[in-house]
This record gives sequence, C-alpha cells and structure tokens, in this order.
Amino acid sequence: MKKLRVGIIGVGGIAQGRHIPAFLQLSNQCELTAVSDVNVERAKEIAEKHSIPYVFENYRELFSNVDAVCICTPNKFHAEITMAAFEAGVHVLCEKPMALSANECEAMIAASKKAGKVLAIAYHYRFMKEVQAAKKVMEEVGKPLVVRVQALRRRKVPGWGVFTNKDLQGGGSLIDFGCHLLDLALWLMGNPKHIEVSGTTYNALSKIPNQVNQWGTFDHETFNVDDHVTAYMKFENGASMLFETSWAANIKDDCANVSISGVDGGINVFPFELYSTKNGMLLNSEAAWIPGEEDPDLPQARNFIDACLGFEELVVKPEEALQVSQIIDRIYESGRNTL
Amino acid sequence: MKKLRVGIIGVGGIAQGRHIPAFLQLSNQCELTAVSDVNVERAKEIAEKHSIPYVFENYRELFSNVDAVCICTPNKFHAEITMAAFEAGVHVLCEKPMALSANECEAMIAASKKAGKVLAIAYHYRFMKEVQAAKKVMEEVGKPLVVRVQALRRRKVPGWGVFTNKDLQGGGSLIDFGCHLLDLALWLMGNPKHIEVSGTTYNALSKIPNQVNQWGTFDHETFNVDDHVTAYMKFENGASMLFETSWAANIKDDCANVSISGVDGGINVFPFELYSTKNGMLLNSEAAWIPGEEDPDLPQARNFIDACLGFEELVVKPEEALQVSQIIDRIYESGRNTL
Amino acid sequence: MKKLRVGIIGVGGIAQGRHIPAFLQLSNQCELTAVSDVNVERAKEIAEKHSIPYVFENYRELFSNVDAVCICTPNKFHAEITMAAFEAGVHVLCEKPMALSANECEAMIAASKKAGKVLAIAYHYRFMKEVQAAKKVMEEVGKPLVVRVQALRRRKVPGWGVFTNKDLQGGGSLIDFGCHLLDLALWLMGNPKHIEVSGTTYNALSKIPNQVNQWGTFDHETFNVDDHVTAYMKFENGASMLFETSWAANIKDDCANVSISGVDGGINVFPFELYSTKNGMLLNSEAAWIPGEEDPDLPQARNFIDACLGFEELVVKPEEALQVSQIIDRIYESGRNTL
Amino acid sequence: MKKLRVGIIGVGGIAQGRHIPAFLQLSNQCELTAVSDVNVERAKEIAEKHSIPYVFENYRELFSNVDAVCICTPNKFHAEITMAAFEAGVHVLCEKPMALSANECEAMIAASKKAGKVLAIAYHYRFMKEVQAAKKVMEEVGKPLVVRVQALRRRKVPGWGVFTNKDLQGGGSLIDFGCHLLDLALWLMGNPKHIEVSGTTYNALSKIPNQVNQWGTFDHETFNVDDHVTAYMKFENGASMLFETSWAANIKDDCANVSISGVDGGINVFPFELYSTKNGMLLNSEAAWIPGEEDPDLPQARNFIDACLGFEELVVKPEEALQVSQIIDRIYESGRNTL
Amino acid sequence: MKKLRVGIIGVGGIAQGRHIPAFLQLSNQCELTAVSDVNVERAKEIAEKHSIPYVFENYRELFSNVDAVCICTPNKFHAEITMAAFEAGVHVLCEKPMALSANECEAMIAASKKAGKVLAIAYHYRFMKEVQAAKKVMEEVGKPLVVRVQALRRRKVPGWGVFTNKDLQGGGSLIDFGCHLLDLALWLMGNPKHIEVSGTTYNALSKIPNQVNQWGTFDHETFNVDDHVTAYMKFENGASMLFETSWAANIKDDCANVSISGVDGGINVFPFELYSTKNGMLLNSEAAWIPGEEDPDLPQARNFIDACLGFEELVVKPEEALQVSQIIDRIYESGRNTL
Amino acid sequence: MKKLRVGIIGVGGIAQGRHIPAFLQLSNQCELTAVSDVNVERAKEIAEKHSIPYVFENYRELFSNVDAVCICTPNKFHAEITMAAFEAGVHVLCEKPMALSANECEAMIAASKKAGKVLAIAYHYRFMKEVQAAKKVMEEVGKPLVVRVQALRRRKVPGWGVFTNKDLQGGGSLIDFGCHLLDLALWLMGNPKHIEVSGTTYNALSKIPNQVNQWGTFDHETFNVDDHVTAYMKFENGASMLFETSWAANIKDDCANVSISGVDGGINVFPFELYSTKNGMLLNSEAAWIPGEEDPDLPQARNFIDACLGFEELVVKPEEALQVSQIIDRIYESGRNTL
Repeated sequence: MKKLRVGIIGVGGIAQGRHIPAFLQLSNQCELTAVSDVNVERAKEIAEKHSIPYVFENYRELFSNVDAVCICTPNKFHAEITMAAFEAGVHVLCEKPMALSANECEAMIAASKKAGKVLAIAYHYRFMKEVQAAKKVMEEVGKPLVVRVQALRRRKVPGWGVFTNKDLQGGGSLIDFGCHLLDLALWLMGNPKHIEVSGTTYNALSKIPNQVNQWGTFDHETFNVDDHVTAYMKFENGASMLFETSWAANIKDDCANVSISGVDGGINVFPFELYSTKNGMLLNSEAAWIPGEEDPDLPQARNFIDACLGFEELVVKPEEALQVSQIIDRIYESGRNTL
Repeated sequence: MKKLRVGIIGVGGIAQGRHIPAFLQLSNQCELTAVSDVNVERAKEIAEKHSIPYVFENYRELFSNVDAVCICTPNKFHAEITMAAFEAGVHVLCEKPMALSANECEAMIAASKKAGKVLAIAYHYRFMKEVQAAKKVMEEVGKPLVVRVQALRRRKVPGWGVFTNKDLQGGGSLIDFGCHLLDLALWLMGNPKHIEVSGTTYNALSKIPNQVNQWGTFDHETFNVDDHVTAYMKFENGASMLFETSWAANIKDDCANVSISGVDGGINVFPFELYSTKNGMLLNSEAAWIPGEEDPDLPQARNFIDACLGFEELVVKPEEALQVSQIIDRIYESGRNTL
Repeated sequence: MKKLRVGIIGVGGIAQGRHIPAFLQLSNQCELTAVSDVNVERAKEIAEKHSIPYVFENYRELFSNVDAVCICTPNKFHAEITMAAFEAGVHVLCEKPMALSANECEAMIAASKKAGKVLAIAYHYRFMKEVQAAKKVMEEVGKPLVVRVQALRRRKVPGWGVFTNKDLQGGGSLIDFGCHLLDLALWLMGNPKHIEVSGTTYNALSKIPNQVNQWGTFDHETFNVDDHVTAYMKFENGASMLFETSWAANIKDDCANVSISGVDGGINVFPFELYSTKNGMLLNSEAAWIPGEEDPDLPQARNFIDACLGFEELVVKPEEALQVSQIIDRIYESGRNTL
Repeated sequence: MKKLRVGIIGVGGIAQGRHIPAFLQLSNQCELTAVSDVNVERAKEIAEKHSIPYVFENYRELFSNVDAVCICTPNKFHAEITMAAFEAGVHVLCEKPMALSANECEAMIAASKKAGKVLAIAYHYRFMKEVQAAKKVMEEVGKPLVVRVQALRRRKVPGWGVFTNKDLQGGGSLIDFGCHLLDLALWLMGNPKHIEVSGTTYNALSKIPNQVNQWGTFDHETFNVDDHVTAYMKFENGASMLFETSWAANIKDDCANVSISGVDGGINVFPFELYSTKNGMLLNSEAAWIPGEEDPDLPQARNFIDACLGFEELVVKPEEALQVSQIIDRIYESGRNTL
Repeated sequence: MKKLRVGIIGVGGIAQGRHIPAFLQLSNQCELTAVSDVNVERAKEIAEKHSIPYVFENYRELFSNVDAVCICTPNKFHAEITMAAFEAGVHVLCEKPMALSANECEAMIAASKKAGKVLAIAYHYRFMKEVQAAKKVMEEVGKPLVVRVQALRRRKVPGWGVFTNKDLQGGGSLIDFGCHLLDLALWLMGNPKHIEVSGTTYNALSKIPNQVNQWGTFDHETFNVDDHVTAYMKFENGASMLFETSWAANIKDDCANVSISGVDGGINVFPFELYSTKNGMLLNSEAAWIPGEEDPDLPQARNFIDACLGFEELVVKPEEALQVSQIIDRIYESGRNTL
Repeated sequence: MKKLRVGIIGVGGIAQGRHIPAFLQLSNQCELTAVSDVNVERAKEIAEKHSIPYVFENYRELFSNVDAVCICTPNKFHAEITMAAFEAGVHVLCEKPMALSANECEAMIAASKKAGKVLAIAYHYRFMKEVQAAKKVMEEVGKPLVVRVQALRRRKVPGWGVFTNKDLQGGGSLIDFGCHLLDLALWLMGNPKHIEVSGTTYNALSKIPNQVNQWGTFDHETFNVDDHVTAYMKFENGASMLFETSWAANIKDDCANVSISGVDGGINVFPFELYSTKNGMLLNSEAAWIPGEEDPDLPQARNFIDACLGFEELVVKPEEALQVSQIIDRIYESGRNTL
C-alpha cells in the first residue's frame, strides 16, 4: 500500500517531542518527506537527524512534496497555513488551539469541506487511556449535571518560546493548557450547546517582578497574557461547568482533571474512578488496568493517517475543536476587564 | 452582675443540639428563662429537662420573660419573629439563613437599628478554630483572586423535618448547607461587593423514586427544593468564586471546604493549610495546633451574650448575613429555569 | 398485635452479649418471658436485671411460658433441647453449630417439620451488611470456581468456659469459629452439593505447656480439641474450596474472610470488594456505603420473630446449617489421625 | 583452570532472558561454545550477537562441542534431549518443569546416574535472596503444620509461544507457573513425602471468546490447558498444603507467595517476614537487608557450573524436581474431570 | 490475710489520677485508710468520695492509721515526709523525683534501712509493657554502646500547680519529665556507674511573654526553672548517653523514647522494636502483642504492696532512683551558667 | 575570557565520581589540563578517557601546567600537597576533612594567605538545596539552643580503599562521614566558638570477625579506626550539640540529618521542614519546591572557580573547615580511652 507522505511545518518542541517521533514509529503507514521552519537551520538539523529529504524555509514550498501536513507553529499562523494547505490539496493535522479565534476556525472548517481534505486538531489528551475509558462509561454517569474542570499548575509559567506573547499565541494559560481539559470535558458531555459563558482572567501574579517560578525566569514586563482563569458555563442540556486553569496558582499541588456528577453516577478522569450505586450500596470503582497505549501521540497520529486514507473517522472532529475556541473567545471577552 | 435572660423559640434539633447546651454551659453569664414551640408538648419536655421556668405555645408571650431570644424555627418564620422580638425590645440570635429573602433581611436590620437591639445570625462555622486561624492569615494570601467553595454531601438528603419543603425553608441544599460555606468564603475575602452572580439549580436525582440515600428515605414526590447547586460570582475587587453545594452529589467523598488563591499565597480552610513562598522556596504549612475551642457553639453563644451586654462586637454581622442572602436570591433567580 | 413470648435457655456469654439485648430492643414484637440455666443463680440475676418474669433451672419447665426459645447452651445439648422444644410446640432459635453431628441435625429438622415449628440456627455472620451485599452481587461473579475461606486467629485460644472441652463442644476452632465462615461461603455459592471433603486437624501447638496466648492461660493437658484445621472441598457445580481455620495460628494478623473467584468476576467479603471487567478494563470496586444495621444480632432476632409469626422466610435455613455440620463431620473424620 | 564449555539448546525467551546472560557473566568459569534451535536462523542471530562459535539446527550435533548443555525447549522435549545428552556424556541444566510426567523424570535421573553426569533443573526461584533466607530460618518455624501456596495472576494468559498448547507443554498455569512456588514450598518443608493429593483444574474463563487479558489476545478455541488450579496435599510428617495457581484469576492483585505456620513460628517468603514468640511477646520481623544477588539466574548458573566441576552440591536436586512433577501428575489426574 | 493499710499524703492530680485508683482496684490486698493534705478541704472531698475513714491536715497524724504511705506532695517535701514515715515505722512509696538532691536521697535510703521499711519511688514508666519487654531483650542488644534519650514536648509548659516553681520542685522539665526516661535508660543499661556528666539548661523561650503554649498560659516572670535540657554522660562500662528533655521545644512532634545501640543489636522502647542480625540478614522486629497491663499504675501499686508484705522484690530500687537524682544534680550543676 | 586550568591530584573514587564530572561540565569556565596519581596507570586511563593532556606520577610536576588543583588523595597527604601547591602559586580545592589535625589546617591557612591563593575545602553537603534553604531561614529559628546531628549508617563499613586505615585517614566514621554533618550544623549555627567538647569513640562491633555488613567484607583485624562516635559540645552563644555518627550502628534506618531548636522556631534539614508559630498557632512547613541544582558538585566547582577568578566569595571558608577539624581533634582526644 502506498504510504502517506507527511510534512512538518514548524519544528520546535512540540514537533520534536510529540509528532515527529509518532510519525517515525508509524513508518509502515507513512513517511516524513518534508519539514519547514522560519528558522531554516533548525529545520535542516532535524531533517538530517531523521533522514527527511526535503527542507524549506517557506512552508508553501513544502506542499508539493506531501499528502498531509502537521502544523506546529505559534497559534497565530494556524489558520493561514491550514487554508494554504487545503488550497494545495493537502490534509491537515493542526496543533491546538485550532486558531486564535472562532472565526478563523470556521473558515478553516469551510476550507476543509471545500477541499475535501481532513482537518484534525491535536487535542492529544483525547487519546489517553483514562479518557477513552471515561468516554465509554459515561452511560453509567447518566445525564451529566455538574462538570468540574481543573488545569492548574503551581508557579510554572513557561518562560521560554512564545508562550507569554499575546500577539503570537492569543492568550496564556487558558488557550495553551486549559483548552485541553476544556475539550475533554465537552467531549465527555457529548458537546452540548453552551448557552451561557462567564469568565475572569488574571495576571496580577506574573506582573510582579522576580516571582518564584518552578520553570525558570520570565520577563514580567512583557508578560501580557493570562496566568489564571476561572469560568462558568451553562449548557442547553441543563449541565453547568465550573472551570479553572492556571500556570501560576498559589495552590498545594498541580492538578489536571475533569470530574462529572450525573443523575446516576459520577466519574473522575485522572485518576480514573467511577462512583455508582448497586443493590442499594454506594460503590467506588478504580481501574486496576486500562487497555491502550501509554503515549497518546501514537494513536493520535494513527487516527489522522487512517482518516486521511479513509479508513477511520477522526476522533477529534474540527467542529468539536471549534466549540472549544468559541468558549475561549467568550471567556476572554467576559474577562476582558479583569486582566 | 446581672445575667442575660435568654429564651428559645422553636425547640427542634438545632436548639437541642447546639444552642440550649451552649447557653447552659455559660450559666455564669446567662440563664435560660423561657422556651416556646408550636409543638407545646415538646417545649414542655425540654423545659422540664433543663429546669427552664416558662413555656409557651405562642412565641409572643415569651418576650416579657427574656432579654434575648434565639430563633430556631423553620426559615419562613425568621423574619416575622425577629421583627416581633425587636418590637418587644428583645435581642435576637437567629438561626441561618437569616431569612427567606434579602428583602426580609433588610427589614430585620432596619428593625434592629430602630430598636437598638442586637441582631446576630448563627453562622456557627465562623467560630471554628480553623476559620478563625484562616481569617488571621489572609494577609499572607494577599489580594484574593480565585475562591473555591464546596459544600458537598454524597447522597445524604435529610428526609426528616421540613428540609425538603420549599414553602417553609425557601430552598434546599443551598439555603440549608451551602450558605455556611458561602458565608465563610465571603468573610475571608472581606465581604467585597458582588457584581455578577450566575447559578444553576438541580433536583433531578431526588425526583427519582427510591434513590439510594445514606440519611434514610424521603418522599421524591413532595421534594420540591434544590439538591445540587452550582454558581459563579465576580466581585468588585476582581476576585471570582466557583461555588458548588449538594445534598445528593454522585461524588467520592463528602467535602466542606473553602480554598483561596491570592496574589501572594494560598489557603485551605478544612484542613487548615497555607501555601506560600519564602526565600525562593515554595512552602506548604499545616497547623500542628490551633488555639480555640472544639465546639463552635460555645464561642458563638458567648459572643452573642457579650454583644448584648455591650462588651464585644458581633463576629457575624447582620450585614454580612444579608450579603449571603442576596447572593442566594440571585442564584435561585439565575437558576430558576433549571430546577 | 400479640407479641411473641421468647425464652432463653442458657444465659452465658452469648445470651447476654447477643440474644438478650437483641430481643429487648425488639420489644414491640416480642417479650422475654422466661430464662433457664443449670446455674440457676446466674439465671435469676439476669432475669432480675431485665425484669424477666420466669426463671427455671430445668429448661423443660420453661416451655409452657413461651412461644419460642433461644438455645445458648454448650453444643452437646443443642439437639436434645431442640427436640424437647418442638415436642412442646415451641419455635427454636439454636446457637451454632446446629449440633454435634449431622445425624443430630437431621433429627432436629425432622422434628421441626413434624411440629410445624420454626428451626433457625444463629449463624449471625449472615446478617452482616457486607455479607448481605455480597450475596446480592454474586451474579457479577458468575459461576463460582475457587472459594477461599480463612477464619484465623493468632494465638487466641479461648481458655474460659467449655471451648476446649471436646465432650461438650464436639471440637475446637472448626466447630466454634470456622463454622461461621464455612456457612457464609456455602451460602454465597448457593449451597451446592459437596462431593469430596478432605481435611487435617491440629493441636500440637496448644498441647505444649505455657504457650504465649493473647486470650489468657489454658490447660494444655485437658485441651483435647483442634486449634487449627485445613480442608479442601469439591462441589457438584465444579467449584472447589480452600479452607483454613485456627485459634492459634503462627500468622501475622487475624483474618476472617471469604473470597470467591468466578468465571466473570471476583468478590471479597471482609472488606467488601468486587473485581470485575467493564469495557475492556479491569475494575476494583469497594463499598463506600452499605445499607443495613451495624449489629447483626438485631436483624437475626427480627428474622426469627417474623418467621415464627409467619411474615418472612428464614434467612438461615436449617438445611443450610445441616450442610455445614455434614462438612464438619467429614473434615473431622478425614483429619482424625492427624490431631 | 579449564573453563566449562556450555551449549544452549533452544534459544527462545527463557534462554535469551535468563541463561545466556548468566553464562556470559560467568566468563571466567565457562564459555558458551554452541547453540542449537529448530529455528536455525534465530540460533544464528543469537550466536553472532554473542560470538558463540558453533550453531546447529539439530541439537545432537552440538554435544561434541560442549561439556554441558542448558535445555530451553518446550517441555515436551526435556526428557528426550536430556537422555541424549547423558548418552553423549554431557551435563544437563534443564528448564522447569523437569518433564511432562514423573515417569520421564525418573528415567532422566536414572540416565544421569548411569552417565555420572550432573542433572540440574532450573527452578530459579530457589536462588532468590528471600528464599535462601527463608530456608535458613525454618528452624524458627519448627515442625511445619500448614503451608499456603499462591501463584496467581489476574488475567495474564501468555498468548504468545506455546504456553497454551497442551501437547507441547503438558499443561498450563500449574506446570508453567505454579510449579515454581510448589517447588519452593516443598523444599522449605524439607521435601516430606506426599501421602494425599487432590486437585481441581479450570479453564472455563479462557474458553470464553474475547476475554479481557493484560498480556494480549489469545485464541480461546485452541486453548486446551488449565488457567486456574486448586489443590490440597497431606504429607507424611502431618503437614498439609493449600495450593492455588492461575494465569487468569478474577482477583484484586497478582500474588506469588509461600507462607508456612509451624508449631513454633510462622514465615512468609515474599516479602520475607517471620512471626515468632519471644519472652512472652509475639514478634513480627521483617528483613531490613538480605545478603545475596538480586538476579537469581547468576547463582543458578554458578551452582550448575560448580556442580559440573565437582566443587559444590546442586541446590536443586533432581529428586526434588521429580517430587514436583509427581504432585503435578496427581493434581492433573485428580482434576481430570473438572477442566 | 490482713490487708495493708495505705495512706495518701497530698491528694493533688497525681494522687487522684494514678495512686488512689490503683490502690482502690487492689482492694483484696490493701485498703485506703487515711489521707492528708495541707488543703484539708480537698482531702475531705477525696476521702468522702472514696469512703476513706481518716482525714488529716498534718501528715504526721496520719501515720498511726496506716502501714504504708504514698507521698504525692511537691518534690520539696519528699525527703522530710519519707524520713518522718520511717521514724513512725511506715513503708513509703514516694513520687518521683526521689527528692530535691542526691544528698536527700541518700538520707532517705539510710533511714529506710535503719527502719527496715520499704522505700519505693514511683517511676511508673518502669511498669509499662514495652519497658518490661525491652528489659528482657537487652541480652539481644549485647553490651550497650550508645543510648539516646528523648523526653520532649512541643510547647506544653504545665502552667498549673507548682511545676514552674523552683523552690518547691527543684527544677523544671528535667526533674519533672526527663527523669522518667533517664531512669528507664539507666535501668535498661543495668545502672552502670556514670563517670562523666555534662549538661546545659535553658529557659529563654519560657521567659518571653505571651508564648504560644498548648497547655494554657503561664507567668513568664515567675518562671524560674528549666524548660529544655541537654546532657551527655559517659559510663564505666564504656557506654555513652545523648540526653534531651523539654517542655517547650520547637520541634515537630512530642517524643518520649529511649533507644540503645549495642554491640549485637539495637532496641527502641516506644514503640517497641528490635534491630538484630540473623543468618547474615538484618532483621527489624516489632511487637505484635506484649503481655501485661495497659495501666502501669496497677502493677506499680501491686509491686509496692507485695514488697511491703515481703512477697516480692521492688522493681524500682531506691539506689536506682538515687542514681537518677545524682545525675540530675550533675546536669543542673554543669548547666548552672546556661539557664 | 581565559579559562582556569585545573589539575586533579589523586584520581580515585571521589575524583572520578564528583570532581572530574563537575569540572568537565563547566568547560566554558575551566579546563582539566593535568592529573597525577601514585598509581600512574590509573591516572593515564583517566586522562585518556577525558582527553586531559598531562599525566604525572609525582604531583609536584603537575603544578606548572595548572592554575588550580583539586586534591583527592588519602587524608594524610592533604596538608603536604596543599602547602606545595601554594608554594607553586596554585589555588587549592582540597577534599574533606581538611587535614589530619587542626595544626595542619592552621598551617594550610597561613600558607594560603601568604601565597594569596584560594583554599577551598570540599564539604559538598553545603551546596545541597536543602542546606542552602536552611541557612536562609535560620532567622526564623532565632537564637539556636539545641542542635542534633546524626550521620548514621546501619552496618555499612566501607571495606574497600583506605577507609579503615588510621595511619592514612586519621580516623573512621567521624573524620570520613560525620565531619560533613558536623560542618553543616556549625555553619547553620553561625560557627560560634566551641567552649566544651566531650566524646566517645567505639569500634567494638567492627573488631568482631565476620560481621554482617551491607557494604561487603572487611578485615576486622587491621580495622583500627572508629566505627561509631558520640559527642557533646557547648558553644559560647549558649547552644549545645548532641552529635552521633557511625558506619556500623545497630539502628533501624540510616540517617543523615541536622535539626535545630531555637528560641523562636525549629528546623530540620533532611527533609527540609520548619516548625514555627504564627498568630497563636503552631505551624509545620515543608518545602514543596526548593530552587537550586540536584547535584551539589556542580555549584561547588563553580564556586571554587569563581573564587579563583575573584568573582565570588568561597561558600566553605577554610576557617570553618578548621573548626570542624578542631572539634574532631577534641572528640578523638576525649574518646581516646574508649576505643
């Protein structure tokens, strides 16, 4: 069978740490044929290391050598590159968040449909074993009532790269980290329509000079994104969500979790636990063993390839990623005056 | 010194379990001189057991024998009795919630001022050792940013008494249980003005017949209050609050807690913990020992007596209890369509 | 409604600790009208303490004052008294083990049927909350394959009373303690027919003078019962049981437990745990809350009364207690040469 | 000193994972001179990787290049190859179980004696530090009474290789896994004569299609061995053993352990613990440190070499391995109708 | 048999909490016939409560009504009353410390010998189960090398009674609390001769006004005893002791313990643990069960009575208590300039 | 900038494990230009492995090729080599202990001053994160009162190298291991003057043949150093220290720790914990995160280089290391008769 030719656009940390190793492992289904990066030296190094034939500075030149691209640039360029790829007839796996705004996301979906090409968004938490297990037992939870989302780090502002640059990233802790857990929560709920979103955004802590920070130093002066966000959502199906994310919270322990209380039972995702009733008892169940792979990058890449080849449905549908971006838009708007 | 003559109006569980024992222990400062209850037989029993001289069916007859009353009736009667007490020139310690609505609360405060008599509300969590300790260290937390409130019980609907009767109580889990933790959280924050309140109320679970319930059976048909509530608040000082309360949540463990992340540090109330920075380190501190009394009812009664005698300020000011009721009003209103 | 008149025969530890308190608590359904004991002084004391009108030295005189008796004598007299009671037209709740031998048990059942009176055996473990819960979830376990029974104490030979007297008790650790867990295990399995029983009985440890013993001293010379027993059973349904009981084992911790591995899942009774599969996962479930009463003596007495009054089936059927005695007979026989 | 020339027959997982690394580490006492395998390609790879000079498809050709062989083939070929080796005057270290039946084992021992060559069986658990420690403290345990053996895995059927093939292996969980712990238990007891053996064998679980299995998928249709076995043994010295092994038990946790209660004390092997009496106290002792090597394969290989060279007695004597096989025969026979 | 008539001199906390209950429980061996106290009202109350026939203000009047006395006064009066008792021909059980100085102790011993009456000192820790067990296993420890003694409380200055009054008590934390553990350690070592004692005494913390103190408030101005003491001792047998005691240490947890490392093994008293070697292993042993009584006051009283009646040797010999006082003298002298 | 040329004198374990890797990592600030060792073959191997240009047998020939040396020889040669280095105008980083005696140390300091060259002593515990953190919070502890030092290993005599040779090392557990924790404790206290030192030294355990030892065998006959030492110190500022170190203690667990109780609070170094008072509470604080490097060798080497280059003060001043040696001298003298 012919292998899918895949190109990588932007070869920074996320490409090197997640996508390139995954595609390399799936060498019987695909081959990495091209990379591009505005830092062309870095691109050359990577290409040489992994014997990737084509290297470009301008991503547009890459399209002719690939069937699909994986976009790993700053958030600002997600939409533009995606549109260009579809114009060139190339499938797209785009890093999260889908784009800087819901408007951009909608345009990307339209282009995907027009081109008849796959548009996948790399919300890789979806491919974790606990998450797949959780989705399957949502029927035990019954109609979801209350959803709690926490994506919290204690004083771990990522000072490197472009993370604290609003122009390139569109935001901070919410758009970079909280988006993953928000996506999970929405998916577990069945992506019901959101009918009310209210939020507050903070960065008072990171604007103070010389903060204690576990992930190195950063420039408090140029820091212009959110480092802590709270939000509340109501959904058409009656559920409500209490949401919090942070890079810099004054809390005891880091926490990335979704928990849901439904009419029939409750669920916790990390670690996977189920709270149910049985014969008049209240049961707590934990997973002694969950099938699946430890590294979510591998099933993510496999799902993308299989979708491009027409063998499988996408796990992360672009319409679901759009909803995440719509809610992020609403939170940032609601919290505009609070930063 | 002359002792304060105290009367008890309504001699149900809360009176017998908390207030009567507390006033009896403070016998050098006060004496229980009268009780009243619509169930006059029950009142007589209690009076006899504790050698309380006067017993009435109608609370109005009690006022002439006391300097102060403790109101322990269903919530519906809090305002009416308080107003009558002030008219009779009697101090009032009223059980929480202050009343059925903020309007009633405002009338009570006005009457208190006009009569020049003390109006205290029995938010007894305030007198717990951890809470007093937490209030004192709020300066280490700095400007509060995010406040998390959880007052959650797993399948413990109180089926007895009037708890599930909306007409008499005004609501369910929020007005009965959540109000305590809400009051704590507001007080720790310094009772900043709330500028936005959104909430959702549920009772789908309790409306299902024959639910598993740790606190006995209850009638799902007449159940007409909330058993689970979520809410979100924004405050004038920029803080936001994620709030959840329930009698019947599908969760792992019961939880009653307030935690706050501020600009400088974080705090957890139950158990008491402090999260701070020091010399570039992140410190977690727990209380090896907190001064104070184990039973909050005693310092609550003592504070009320001392306030009546003019020796001390009230710890729970009626204006603070009013804010709790204002927010409860707003949550019930916001969640009206969701029950 | 007329109350069941209950008499107690033998007012030693088990009567005072379990049965008398239970019947006293159920005073709206029954009344204790008579007690008898060969030690008539002890019987008088007990009667006076609990205002029981009739006291006898000879149990036969008691029958005319009761509708039912609870037999709490040494094991040797269980059968004789039961037969006499039925002849007198009186219901019987007999302490475990049912009798000294299966032959005696069969005679008791025959007499019960002939008299048309209830014959219950006080295997009170059956009424524990965990046990009732376990029985209900046996369908999750599926066809039982392997059953493990442990009723083990570390160096706790009961030196008082008649426990170490073979003539009066018929045996030691097996007939006194192990029988409870054996009964549980058989009941959870559905009392399948046993087709092979092999066992070994020990008392080498207790025959050594001056043994370390947590429950006081005992006479190693007169000690003539088993202090440790192992056994193995095969059942008609293909299941097999690994059984061990002891008063005096050299082990780390005491242990009273039944665990079962079935085709579909596994169960542990103390503490209650369930091991199952779900959506390809392996789940471990524990009980956060089990409905029921803490003290098994109460539901045991209630079930006996209700059975006497014709309102309810017996939970512990005499045929089930007979099987326990049949197996005990077989174990003692198999292990005869090993003691 | 001349080094022992060692050949490996069968270069599958057990040879690559245990024996070859061990012999390579002992290069001052021995050298690997030849390998053979019916899959001669695999043999060549291994030989090349470790610079082993001779490679054969037929094991008989290997004998002339070695002083000793290590037999790592399916169980079916253990006896045949061992006999051939002795005929060729070559020492034998044979993987466990010794052979498919006790009869074969006896023939192997006779051939060993006739040839005057060493016959060792690779029950490598014997060389674990805890096991050596346990053997030494058996005197503290005194006369062994009750022996408990558990070799249990939760849903870990080894689907690869020949493990589920009765023709090649002679059985399943018992002959593959349980045999190790059975051997340990017998050795710790002093290999007393077994006078009664009863057992039950199961595979109902593994015969159900698509079972949840932690160790990959397997073909339930061709599965024709035991996946769960219970047994009971009585010994001439009065001891009894409760035995259970499984690849597929519905239990909470995997467990490989032997525990023994004797007249004087008790012992647990994994982890090593001793239960004893001292000055009227009951003591629990655990090992803070045990001398010896972490990897049992090394002392096993060293003991074999030293025995071949006449320097040391075998730790695992063939007569002891024979007893294991005798008991396995008896269990399979006793449980024949239950599979 | 005639019962020993016992009198109590000083009926404060230690008499009421320990000695009176113990003698009352031993009513078949002794009877409490008299009490005396400078606070004669308190003495009368106690006498009435326990039906003790004679009450005196002056202890000298008590002697004619008793065979033995238990002295529970402030330390200052121990010697004087003991001497008077012996003159009156009465046995003495004196509270610890034996007296204010070694000189006084020597005089007490001389008087005891002259009178031929028993002199026991109430170092009741000696009668704890762990301590008796530890003494018995000292042979496993071998020659003691290093002894560590800690008698430490975190901020628990006893503000009540006379504890902080040097004139009446002779010292603070050392003479009141540390003396118990010092006595234990010496006894476990076999009371070898001390050849060097050096110490330091502190009270800087308690001299600071308004200290945080778990045991209530105390007057820092009149506080004139030690609240923290360290010391070091060398003994004739080569052992050395590291000693620390405090009422007010800034430490994590309270700790009362003695641990000893000997040539052969080590021991820890609270909790009881033994560290030994066996067959080349290092073993840690803990006590699963220790015989004896939970309350040390009972065996202490019994030993005193039996010694008075000539049935038993004293467990705490006055010469041993003298050594404790000698060392306390030396520590206070050595630390004189440091307080 | 010119790089510091560093030479290593003595290339045994400590050089290979700590210093050489550290200097290699700091290749932008220094270069390893020469090594010397009396075992010149070992020196050549090391030089080749790390491409170090010059190798010598005699350390004196090395000086002309370096700006600084790191002395890693047996303790006996520390002083001699240091003096020679200073004469040659070379900076010195000398392994701990500084020398065999305080006299030697004083001479080294004088030579350093005369030569105007840096003299650093490799007490690398000082550069651990917990230690740096502890030093910074000593102000919370207030005036130090009691200092506890434990440097204890359970039966881990280092049998290899020269550790048990008194002539070459000057002593055993104290001078090799205890010195580190002693140095830490003194530094945390602010190196107050010691005014009294008393100690005891032991080796009875190691002089017994065939001891159980976790770190291999050793020759008990030639063993002539201390394996266990206790000591007590008083300081000019009123503090006292309880000190214990051992290679061979009969204890439960190894322990290397310093804890200090001061007037205001307490501290524990390993793990880092702080015990303080706050608003009337007692707080226990632990470090959730401490800034700094995991490996202390790196900051130690960096500090030495920076001191040589005049950029930074030494962290470990030679006068502080001298005090350690003075106290060791005093302990050995005080304990002379006890070994």
